[in-house]
Amino acid sequence: MQPSPDDLFAKLGEELGYNFDGELKIGGNYVSVILNGQEIYISGQIPRVGDRIIVTGRAGQTVALPQAQLAAKICAMRALALLRQVLGSLGRVKSILRVTVYVQSAETFTQQSEVADGASEVLFAILGQAGAHTRTSVGVYQLPKNATVEIDLIATVK
Amino acid sequence: MQPSPDDLFAKLGEELGYNFDGELKIGGNYVSVILNGQEIYISGQIPRVGDRIIVTGRAGQTVALPQAQLAAKICAMRALALLRQVLGSLGRVKSILRVTVYVQSAETFTQQSEVADGASEVLFAILGQAGAHTRTSVGVYQLPKNATVEIDLIATVK
Amino acid sequence: MQPSPDDLFAKLGEELGYNFDGELKIGGNYVSVILNGQEIYISGQIPRVGDRIIVTGRAGQTVALPQAQLAAKICAMRALALLRQVLGSLGRVKSILRVTVYVQSAETFTQQSEVADGASEVLFAILGQAGAHTRTSVGVYQLPKNATVEIDLIATVK
Repeated sequence: MQPSPDDLFAKLGEELGYNFDGELKIGGNYVSVILNGQEIYISGQIPRVGDRIIVTGRAGQTVALPQAQLAAKICAMRALALLRQVLGSLGRVKSILRVTVYVQSAETFTQQSEVADGASEVLFAILGQAGAHTRTSVGVYQLPKNATVEIDLIATVK
Repeated sequence: MQPSPDDLFAKLGEELGYNFDGELKIGGNYVSVILNGQEIYISGQIPRVGDRIIVTGRAGQTVALPQAQLAAKICAMRALALLRQVLGSLGRVKSILRVTVYVQSAETFTQQSEVADGASEVLFAILGQAGAHTRTSVGVYQLPKNATVEIDLIATVK
Repeated sequence: MQPSPDDLFAKLGEELGYNFDGELKIGGNYVSVILNGQEIYISGQIPRVGDRIIVTGRAGQTVALPQAQLAAKICAMRALALLRQVLGSLGRVKSILRVTVYVQSAETFTQQSEVADGASEVLFAILGQAGAHTRTSVGVYQLPKNATVEIDLIATVK
Protein backbone atom coordinates (compact mmCIF):
# COMPACT_ATOMS: atom_id res chain seq x y z
CA MET A 1 0.00 0.00 0.00
CA GLN A 2 1.29 3.37 -0.99
CA PRO A 3 2.02 5.91 1.73
CA SER A 4 -0.42 8.83 1.80
CA PRO A 5 0.75 12.41 1.25
CA ASP A 6 0.28 12.95 5.00
CA ASP A 7 2.57 9.99 5.76
CA LEU A 8 5.16 11.31 3.31
CA PHE A 9 4.93 14.75 4.89
CA ALA A 10 5.57 13.33 8.37
CA LYS A 11 8.45 11.20 7.06
CA LEU A 12 10.17 14.08 5.28
CA GLY A 13 9.74 16.29 8.34
CA GLU A 14 11.56 13.64 10.38
CA GLU A 15 14.31 13.32 7.78
CA LEU A 16 14.82 17.09 7.80
CA GLY A 17 14.86 16.93 11.60
CA TYR A 18 12.20 19.56 12.16
CA ASN A 19 8.68 19.41 13.50
CA PHE A 20 6.11 21.30 11.43
CA ASP A 21 3.17 20.68 13.71
CA GLY A 22 1.51 23.50 15.58
CA GLU A 23 4.03 26.20 14.85
CA LEU A 24 2.32 28.16 12.17
CA LYS A 25 1.64 31.42 13.88
CA ILE A 26 2.53 34.54 12.00
CA GLY A 27 3.44 37.95 13.24
CA GLY A 28 1.54 40.68 11.47
CA ASN A 29 -2.06 41.60 10.89
CA TYR A 30 -2.67 39.28 8.00
CA VAL A 31 -3.53 35.59 7.62
CA SER A 32 -1.51 32.57 6.59
CA VAL A 33 -4.15 31.03 4.37
CA ILE A 34 -7.17 32.14 2.38
CA LEU A 35 -9.52 29.60 0.85
CA ASN A 36 -11.44 31.03 -2.12
CA GLY A 37 -13.67 28.48 -3.82
CA GLN A 38 -11.31 25.75 -5.01
CA GLU A 39 -8.21 27.91 -4.61
CA ILE A 40 -5.98 28.34 -1.56
CA TYR A 41 -3.53 31.22 -1.25
CA ILE A 42 -0.62 30.72 1.18
CA SER A 43 1.28 33.71 2.59
CA GLY A 44 5.02 34.01 1.97
CA GLN A 45 6.86 31.43 4.11
CA ILE A 46 10.38 31.85 5.41
CA PRO A 47 12.40 28.90 6.79
CA ARG A 48 11.15 29.33 10.33
CA VAL A 49 10.67 26.44 12.72
CA GLY A 50 9.20 27.50 16.03
CA ASP A 51 10.88 30.77 16.91
CA ARG A 52 14.02 30.14 14.89
CA ILE A 53 14.83 31.06 11.31
CA ILE A 54 16.83 28.02 10.27
CA VAL A 55 18.72 29.53 7.33
CA THR A 56 19.62 33.22 7.20
CA GLY A 57 21.99 35.23 5.04
CA ARG A 58 22.80 35.69 1.41
CA ALA A 59 22.98 32.76 -1.01
CA GLY A 60 26.30 32.67 -2.81
CA GLN A 61 27.98 34.67 -0.06
CA THR A 62 27.53 33.34 3.50
CA VAL A 63 25.07 30.63 2.44
CA ALA A 64 26.14 27.79 0.13
CA LEU A 65 23.74 26.22 -2.39
CA PRO A 66 22.84 23.14 -0.28
CA GLN A 67 21.91 25.32 2.69
CA ALA A 68 19.81 27.57 0.48
CA GLN A 69 18.09 24.47 -0.91
CA LEU A 70 17.41 23.33 2.66
CA ALA A 71 15.83 26.73 3.30
CA ALA A 72 13.59 26.23 0.25
CA LYS A 73 12.61 22.78 1.50
CA ILE A 74 11.62 24.14 4.90
CA CYS A 75 9.56 26.91 3.30
CA ALA A 76 7.76 24.30 1.18
CA MET A 77 7.16 22.10 4.24
CA ARG A 78 5.64 25.06 6.04
CA ALA A 79 3.33 25.75 3.11
CA LEU A 80 2.29 22.10 3.08
CA ALA A 81 1.74 22.18 6.84
CA LEU A 82 -0.64 25.09 6.31
CA LEU A 83 -2.44 23.27 3.51
CA ARG A 84 -2.80 20.20 5.73
CA GLN A 85 -4.08 22.34 8.57
CA VAL A 86 -6.80 23.96 6.48
CA LEU A 87 -7.74 20.88 4.46
CA GLY A 88 -7.40 18.20 7.11
CA SER A 89 -5.31 16.08 4.76
CA LEU A 90 -2.79 16.75 2.00
CA GLY A 91 -4.66 14.10 0.02
CA ARG A 92 -7.17 16.84 -0.80
CA VAL A 93 -4.64 18.96 -2.71
CA LYS A 94 -5.48 18.82 -6.40
CA SER A 95 -2.71 20.97 -7.85
CA ILE A 96 -0.23 23.73 -7.13
CA LEU A 97 -0.88 26.53 -9.59
CA ARG A 98 2.06 28.77 -8.78
CA VAL A 99 5.13 28.74 -6.58
CA THR A 100 7.17 31.94 -6.31
CA VAL A 101 10.63 31.56 -4.83
CA TYR A 102 12.51 34.63 -3.60
CA VAL A 103 16.19 34.00 -2.86
CA GLN A 104 18.29 36.52 -0.93
CA SER A 105 21.21 36.52 -3.36
CA ALA A 106 24.78 37.66 -3.65
CA GLU A 107 25.51 40.10 -6.46
CA THR A 108 26.73 37.37 -8.82
CA PHE A 109 24.71 34.41 -7.55
CA THR A 110 22.62 33.12 -10.46
CA GLN A 111 21.45 29.71 -9.19
CA GLN A 112 18.01 30.79 -7.97
CA SER A 113 16.43 27.96 -10.00
CA GLU A 114 18.66 25.42 -8.30
CA VAL A 115 17.66 26.80 -4.90
CA ALA A 116 14.00 26.60 -5.90
CA ASP A 117 14.51 22.95 -6.87
CA GLY A 118 14.59 22.24 -3.12
CA ALA A 119 10.99 23.35 -2.85
CA SER A 120 9.93 21.60 -6.04
CA GLU A 121 11.45 18.33 -4.81
CA VAL A 122 9.44 18.52 -1.60
CA LEU A 123 6.21 19.21 -3.47
CA PHE A 124 6.71 16.28 -5.84
CA ALA A 125 7.96 13.93 -3.11
CA ILE A 126 4.88 14.49 -0.98
CA LEU A 127 2.09 15.28 -3.44
CA GLY A 128 3.20 13.29 -6.48
CA GLN A 129 1.51 14.51 -9.65
CA ALA A 130 -0.66 16.89 -7.60
CA GLY A 131 2.62 18.61 -6.74
CA ALA A 132 3.25 19.66 -10.34
CA HIS A 133 3.48 23.46 -10.37
CA THR A 134 4.49 26.49 -12.36
CA ARG A 135 7.36 28.34 -10.79
CA THR A 136 9.09 31.70 -10.75
CA SER A 137 12.47 32.09 -9.04
CA VAL A 138 14.13 35.44 -8.51
CA GLY A 139 17.08 36.82 -6.57
CA VAL A 140 16.07 39.56 -4.16
CA TYR A 141 18.20 41.91 -2.08
CA GLN A 142 16.82 41.16 1.35
CA LEU A 143 14.05 39.19 3.01
CA PRO A 144 12.18 39.50 6.32
CA LYS A 145 14.36 38.55 9.30
CA ASN A 146 17.33 38.04 7.00
CA ALA A 147 15.83 34.76 5.74
CA THR A 148 17.68 33.21 2.82
CA VAL A 149 14.49 32.13 1.02
CA GLU A 150 10.83 33.10 0.99
CA ILE A 151 8.18 31.11 -0.87
CA ASP A 152 4.49 31.65 -1.50
CA LEU A 153 2.08 29.51 -3.46
CA ILE A 154 -1.44 28.99 -4.73
CA ALA A 155 -2.98 25.52 -4.53
CA THR A 156 -6.27 24.05 -5.67
CA VAL A 157 -8.49 21.57 -3.82
CA LYS A 158 -10.10 18.40 -5.10
CA MET B 1 -24.50 53.42 12.79
CA GLN B 2 -21.19 52.06 11.64
CA PRO B 3 -19.25 54.00 9.05
CA SER B 4 -19.16 52.31 5.64
CA PRO B 5 -15.85 51.22 4.07
CA ASP B 6 -16.22 54.19 1.71
CA ASP B 7 -16.53 56.56 4.68
CA LEU B 8 -13.50 54.99 6.33
CA PHE B 9 -11.56 55.30 3.09
CA ALA B 10 -12.35 59.03 2.84
CA LYS B 11 -11.48 59.54 6.51
CA LEU B 12 -8.14 57.77 6.29
CA GLY B 13 -7.29 59.67 3.13
CA GLU B 14 -7.89 62.91 5.02
CA GLU B 15 -5.80 61.74 7.96
CA LEU B 16 -2.94 60.87 5.62
CA GLY B 17 -3.39 64.27 4.01
CA TYR B 18 -3.68 63.04 0.46
CA ASN B 19 -6.53 62.96 -1.99
CA PHE B 20 -6.96 59.65 -3.80
CA ASP B 21 -9.82 60.75 -6.04
CA GLY B 22 -9.37 60.97 -9.77
CA GLU B 23 -5.66 60.51 -9.94
CA LEU B 24 -5.34 56.95 -11.00
CA LYS B 25 -3.88 57.28 -14.43
CA ILE B 26 -0.97 55.02 -15.25
CA GLY B 27 1.83 55.49 -17.69
CA GLY B 28 2.39 52.43 -19.81
CA ASN B 29 0.37 50.32 -22.17
CA TYR B 30 -1.33 48.22 -19.57
CA VAL B 31 -4.35 48.62 -17.32
CA SER B 32 -4.75 49.32 -13.61
CA VAL B 33 -7.51 46.82 -13.00
CA ILE B 34 -8.83 43.63 -14.55
CA LEU B 35 -12.10 42.14 -13.40
CA ASN B 36 -12.31 38.40 -14.08
CA GLY B 37 -15.47 36.79 -12.76
CA GLN B 38 -15.39 37.41 -9.02
CA GLU B 39 -11.69 38.29 -8.99
CA ILE B 40 -10.06 41.68 -9.44
CA TYR B 41 -6.37 42.05 -10.21
CA ILE B 42 -4.77 45.39 -9.38
CA SER B 43 -1.52 46.49 -11.03
CA GLY B 44 1.51 47.26 -8.89
CA GLN B 45 0.97 50.56 -7.07
CA ILE B 46 3.74 52.90 -5.99
CA PRO B 47 3.17 55.71 -3.45
CA ARG B 48 2.16 58.24 -6.06
CA VAL B 49 -0.34 61.01 -5.41
CA GLY B 50 -1.06 63.10 -8.46
CA ASP B 51 2.27 63.56 -10.21
CA ARG B 52 4.40 63.14 -7.12
CA ILE B 53 5.96 60.00 -5.66
CA ILE B 54 5.54 60.68 -1.95
CA VAL B 55 8.23 58.36 -0.62
CA THR B 56 11.36 57.52 -2.62
CA GLY B 57 14.66 55.92 -1.70
CA ARG B 58 15.93 52.86 0.08
CA ALA B 59 14.35 51.62 3.33
CA GLY B 60 16.94 51.29 6.06
CA GLN B 61 19.23 53.78 4.34
CA THR B 62 17.69 57.13 3.40
CA VAL B 63 14.17 56.07 4.39
CA ALA B 64 13.32 55.23 8.02
CA LEU B 65 10.74 52.58 8.92
CA PRO B 66 7.84 54.98 9.60
CA GLN B 67 8.29 56.63 6.21
CA ALA B 68 8.43 53.25 4.49
CA GLN B 69 5.23 52.29 6.31
CA LEU B 70 3.62 55.51 5.09
CA ALA B 71 4.64 54.51 1.57
CA ALA B 72 2.94 51.14 2.07
CA LYS B 73 -0.19 52.86 3.34
CA ILE B 74 -0.37 55.11 0.29
CA CYS B 75 0.10 52.14 -2.04
CA ALA B 76 -2.77 50.36 -0.26
CA MET B 77 -4.97 53.47 -0.48
CA ARG B 78 -4.31 53.63 -4.21
CA ALA B 79 -5.28 49.98 -4.61
CA LEU B 80 -8.48 50.63 -2.64
CA ALA B 81 -9.21 53.72 -4.72
CA LEU B 82 -9.00 51.54 -7.83
CA LEU B 83 -11.28 48.92 -6.29
CA ARG B 84 -13.77 51.61 -5.38
CA GLN B 85 -13.60 53.05 -8.87
CA VAL B 86 -14.36 49.74 -10.55
CA LEU B 87 -16.91 48.48 -7.99
CA GLY B 88 -18.67 51.72 -7.17
CA SER B 89 -18.29 51.03 -3.45
CA LEU B 90 -15.70 49.34 -1.25
CA GLY B 91 -18.63 47.63 0.44
CA ARG B 92 -18.61 45.20 -2.47
CA VAL B 93 -15.13 43.85 -1.67
CA LYS B 94 -15.48 40.31 -0.33
CA SER B 95 -11.87 39.45 0.38
CA ILE B 96 -8.27 40.22 -0.51
CA LEU B 97 -6.66 37.00 -1.68
CA ARG B 98 -3.08 38.15 -1.97
CA VAL B 99 -1.03 41.24 -1.25
CA THR B 100 2.57 41.32 -2.46
CA VAL B 101 4.74 44.03 -0.96
CA TYR B 102 8.05 44.95 -2.59
CA VAL B 103 10.30 47.13 -0.46
CA GLN B 104 13.35 48.89 -1.91
CA SER B 105 15.76 47.82 0.81
CA ALA B 106 19.20 48.56 2.15
CA GLU B 107 21.63 45.65 2.14
CA THR B 108 20.96 44.79 5.79
CA PHE B 109 17.37 46.03 6.14
CA THR B 110 15.25 43.04 7.20
CA GLN B 111 12.00 44.71 8.32
CA GLN B 112 10.04 44.20 5.12
CA SER B 113 7.19 42.65 7.13
CA GLU B 114 7.02 45.70 9.36
CA VAL B 115 6.85 47.93 6.29
CA ALA B 116 4.09 45.75 4.86
CA ASP B 117 2.15 46.13 8.11
CA GLY B 118 1.39 49.66 6.94
CA ALA B 119 -0.60 48.25 4.03
CA SER B 120 -2.24 45.54 6.13
CA GLU B 121 -3.38 48.12 8.66
CA VAL B 122 -5.06 50.16 5.94
CA LEU B 123 -6.83 47.12 4.53
CA PHE B 124 -8.16 46.05 7.93
CA ALA B 125 -9.05 49.59 9.02
CA ILE B 126 -11.17 50.17 5.94
CA LEU B 127 -12.50 46.75 4.97
CA GLY B 128 -12.69 45.04 8.35
CA GLN B 129 -12.82 41.27 8.03
CA ALA B 130 -13.07 41.58 4.25
CA GLY B 131 -9.56 43.06 4.48
CA ALA B 132 -8.06 39.80 5.74
CA HIS B 133 -5.38 38.79 3.25
CA THR B 134 -2.42 36.55 2.60
CA ARG B 135 0.79 38.48 2.20
CA THR B 136 4.27 38.19 0.80
CA SER B 137 6.88 40.84 1.62
CA VAL B 138 10.28 40.96 -0.03
CA GLY B 139 13.20 43.36 -0.22
CA VAL B 140 14.02 44.35 -3.78
CA TYR B 141 16.95 46.29 -5.18
CA GLN B 142 15.08 49.01 -7.01
CA LEU B 143 11.56 50.02 -7.94
CA PRO B 144 10.07 52.17 -10.70
CA LYS B 145 10.75 55.88 -10.20
CA ASN B 146 12.87 55.10 -7.12
CA ALA B 147 9.71 54.37 -5.12
CA THR B 148 10.32 52.92 -1.67
CA VAL B 149 7.43 50.48 -1.88
CA GLU B 150 5.34 48.82 -4.57
CA ILE B 151 2.25 46.74 -3.82
CA ASP B 152 -0.09 44.67 -5.95
CA LEU B 153 -3.10 42.66 -4.91
CA ILE B 154 -5.93 40.39 -5.91
CA ALA B 155 -9.40 40.97 -4.46
CA THR B 156 -12.70 39.17 -4.74
CA VAL B 157 -16.17 40.68 -5.10
CA LYS B 158 -19.34 39.86 -3.19
CA MET C 1 -8.70 40.33 -43.70
CA GLN C 2 -7.04 40.93 -40.40
CA PRO C 3 -4.05 38.80 -39.49
CA SER C 4 -4.74 36.30 -36.70
CA PRO C 5 -2.85 36.43 -33.40
CA ASP C 6 -0.92 33.36 -34.58
CA ASP C 7 0.11 35.18 -37.77
CA LEU C 8 1.16 38.22 -35.74
CA PHE C 9 3.15 35.99 -33.39
CA ALA C 10 5.03 34.41 -36.31
CA LYS C 11 5.67 37.81 -37.87
CA LEU C 12 7.01 39.38 -34.68
CA GLY C 13 9.21 36.34 -34.07
CA GLU C 14 10.71 36.88 -37.52
CA GLU C 15 11.22 40.58 -36.89
CA LEU C 16 12.99 39.84 -33.63
CA GLY C 17 15.09 37.27 -35.49
CA TYR C 18 14.39 34.38 -33.19
CA ASN C 19 12.46 31.17 -33.58
CA PHE C 20 10.12 30.36 -30.71
CA ASP C 21 8.95 27.01 -32.04
CA GLY C 22 9.80 23.83 -30.21
CA GLU C 23 12.28 25.23 -27.76
CA LEU C 24 10.25 25.42 -24.63
CA LYS C 25 11.92 22.83 -22.48
CA ILE C 26 12.63 23.83 -18.92
CA GLY C 27 15.27 22.59 -16.58
CA GLY C 28 13.90 21.76 -13.17
CA ASN C 29 11.22 19.53 -11.72
CA TYR C 30 8.34 21.82 -12.39
CA VAL C 31 6.11 22.55 -15.39
CA SER C 32 5.90 25.47 -17.80
CA VAL C 33 2.14 25.71 -17.87
CA ILE C 34 -0.80 24.76 -15.69
CA LEU C 35 -4.34 25.00 -17.00
CA ASN C 36 -6.90 25.38 -14.20
CA GLY C 37 -10.44 25.83 -15.44
CA GLN C 38 -10.34 28.99 -17.54
CA GLU C 39 -7.00 30.14 -16.13
CA ILE C 40 -3.51 29.39 -17.36
CA TYR C 41 -0.45 29.97 -15.20
CA ILE C 42 2.88 30.35 -17.02
CA SER C 43 6.18 29.77 -15.22
CA GLY C 44 8.74 32.55 -15.06
CA GLN C 45 10.33 33.04 -18.48
CA ILE C 46 13.84 34.34 -19.06
CA PRO C 47 15.01 35.57 -22.50
CA ARG C 48 16.20 32.16 -23.60
CA VAL C 49 16.11 31.01 -27.21
CA GLY C 50 17.25 27.44 -27.64
CA ASP C 51 20.20 26.99 -25.31
CA ARG C 52 21.18 30.62 -25.26
CA ILE C 53 20.14 33.41 -22.89
CA ILE C 54 19.91 36.34 -25.30
CA VAL C 55 20.25 39.20 -22.81
CA THR C 56 22.22 38.83 -19.57
CA GLY C 57 23.52 41.31 -17.02
CA ARG C 58 22.29 44.22 -15.03
CA ALA C 59 19.97 46.86 -16.55
CA GLY C 60 21.42 50.32 -16.12
CA GLN C 61 24.94 48.97 -15.78
CA THR C 62 26.08 46.58 -18.53
CA VAL C 63 22.66 46.48 -20.21
CA ALA C 64 21.11 49.59 -21.76
CA LEU C 65 17.36 50.20 -21.77
CA PRO C 66 16.71 49.02 -25.37
CA GLN C 67 18.47 45.72 -24.70
CA ALA C 68 16.52 45.22 -21.50
CA GLN C 69 13.33 45.93 -23.44
CA LEU C 70 14.38 43.33 -26.01
CA ALA C 71 14.82 40.88 -23.14
CA ALA C 72 11.28 41.65 -21.96
CA LYS C 73 9.96 41.13 -25.49
CA ILE C 74 11.62 37.73 -25.75
CA CYS C 75 10.22 36.69 -22.36
CA ALA C 76 6.75 37.69 -23.54
CA MET C 77 7.19 35.81 -26.81
CA ARG C 78 8.15 32.71 -24.85
CA ALA C 79 5.06 33.03 -22.69
CA LEU C 80 2.91 33.42 -25.81
CA ALA C 81 4.61 30.42 -27.41
CA LEU C 82 3.63 28.37 -24.35
CA LEU C 83 0.06 29.64 -24.50
CA ARG C 84 -0.11 28.76 -28.18
CA GLN C 85 1.31 25.32 -27.47
CA VAL C 86 -1.27 24.51 -24.82
CA LEU C 87 -4.25 26.18 -26.54
CA GLY C 88 -3.51 25.31 -30.16
CA SER C 89 -4.04 28.93 -31.16
CA LEU C 90 -3.46 32.32 -29.56
CA GLY C 91 -6.94 33.22 -30.80
CA ARG C 92 -8.24 31.34 -27.75
CA VAL C 93 -6.63 33.74 -25.26
CA LYS C 94 -9.36 35.79 -23.60
CA SER C 95 -7.30 38.02 -21.31
CA ILE C 96 -4.03 38.36 -19.43
CA LEU C 97 -4.86 38.84 -15.77
CA ARG C 98 -1.40 39.58 -14.47
CA VAL C 99 2.11 40.09 -15.79
CA THR C 100 4.96 40.33 -13.29
CA VAL C 101 8.22 41.69 -14.66
CA TYR C 102 11.44 41.21 -12.70
CA VAL C 103 14.35 43.31 -13.94
CA GLN C 104 17.93 42.65 -12.81
CA SER C 105 18.75 46.25 -11.97
CA ALA C 106 21.67 48.48 -11.17
CA GLU C 107 21.55 50.22 -7.80
CA THR C 108 20.14 53.44 -9.25
CA PHE C 109 18.24 52.08 -12.25
CA THR C 110 14.58 53.07 -11.86
CA GLN C 111 13.16 52.38 -15.34
CA GLN C 112 11.67 48.97 -14.60
CA SER C 113 8.33 50.15 -16.03
CA GLU C 114 10.00 51.18 -19.25
CA VAL C 115 11.64 47.76 -19.50
CA ALA C 116 8.30 46.09 -18.87
CA ASP C 117 6.79 48.14 -21.71
CA GLY C 118 8.67 45.79 -24.04
CA ALA C 119 6.54 42.91 -22.82
CA SER C 120 3.33 44.93 -22.81
CA GLU C 121 3.94 46.00 -26.41
CA VAL C 122 4.30 42.40 -27.52
CA LEU C 123 1.11 41.36 -25.75
CA PHE C 124 -0.91 44.18 -27.30
CA ALA C 125 0.65 43.80 -30.74
CA ILE C 126 -0.25 40.12 -30.93
CA LEU C 127 -3.39 39.75 -28.83
CA GLY C 128 -4.99 43.15 -29.30
CA GLN C 129 -7.56 43.91 -26.62
CA ALA C 130 -7.16 40.38 -25.22
CA GLY C 131 -3.61 41.45 -24.42
CA ALA C 132 -4.76 44.06 -21.90
CA HIS C 133 -3.19 43.13 -18.56
CA THR C 134 -2.41 44.32 -15.06
CA ARG C 135 1.28 44.59 -14.44
CA THR C 136 3.83 44.75 -11.65
CA SER C 137 7.45 45.68 -12.43
CA VAL C 138 10.22 45.45 -9.86
CA GLY C 139 14.01 45.68 -9.83
CA VAL C 140 15.61 42.53 -8.42
CA TYR C 141 19.22 41.85 -7.49
CA GLN C 142 19.81 38.76 -9.60
CA LEU C 143 17.94 36.35 -11.83
CA PRO C 144 18.52 32.74 -12.87
CA LYS C 145 21.43 32.37 -15.29
CA ASN C 146 22.18 36.09 -14.98
CA ALA C 147 19.15 36.89 -17.17
CA THR C 148 18.32 40.59 -17.39
CA VAL C 149 14.57 40.03 -17.20
CA GLU C 150 12.18 37.35 -16.00
CA ILE C 151 8.43 37.45 -16.63
CA ASP C 152 5.54 35.30 -15.50
CA LEU C 153 1.86 35.67 -16.25
CA ILE C 154 -1.66 34.39 -15.79
CA ALA C 155 -3.97 34.22 -18.79
CA THR C 156 -7.60 33.26 -19.25
CA VAL C 157 -9.14 31.24 -22.06
CA LYS C 158 -12.22 31.98 -24.11
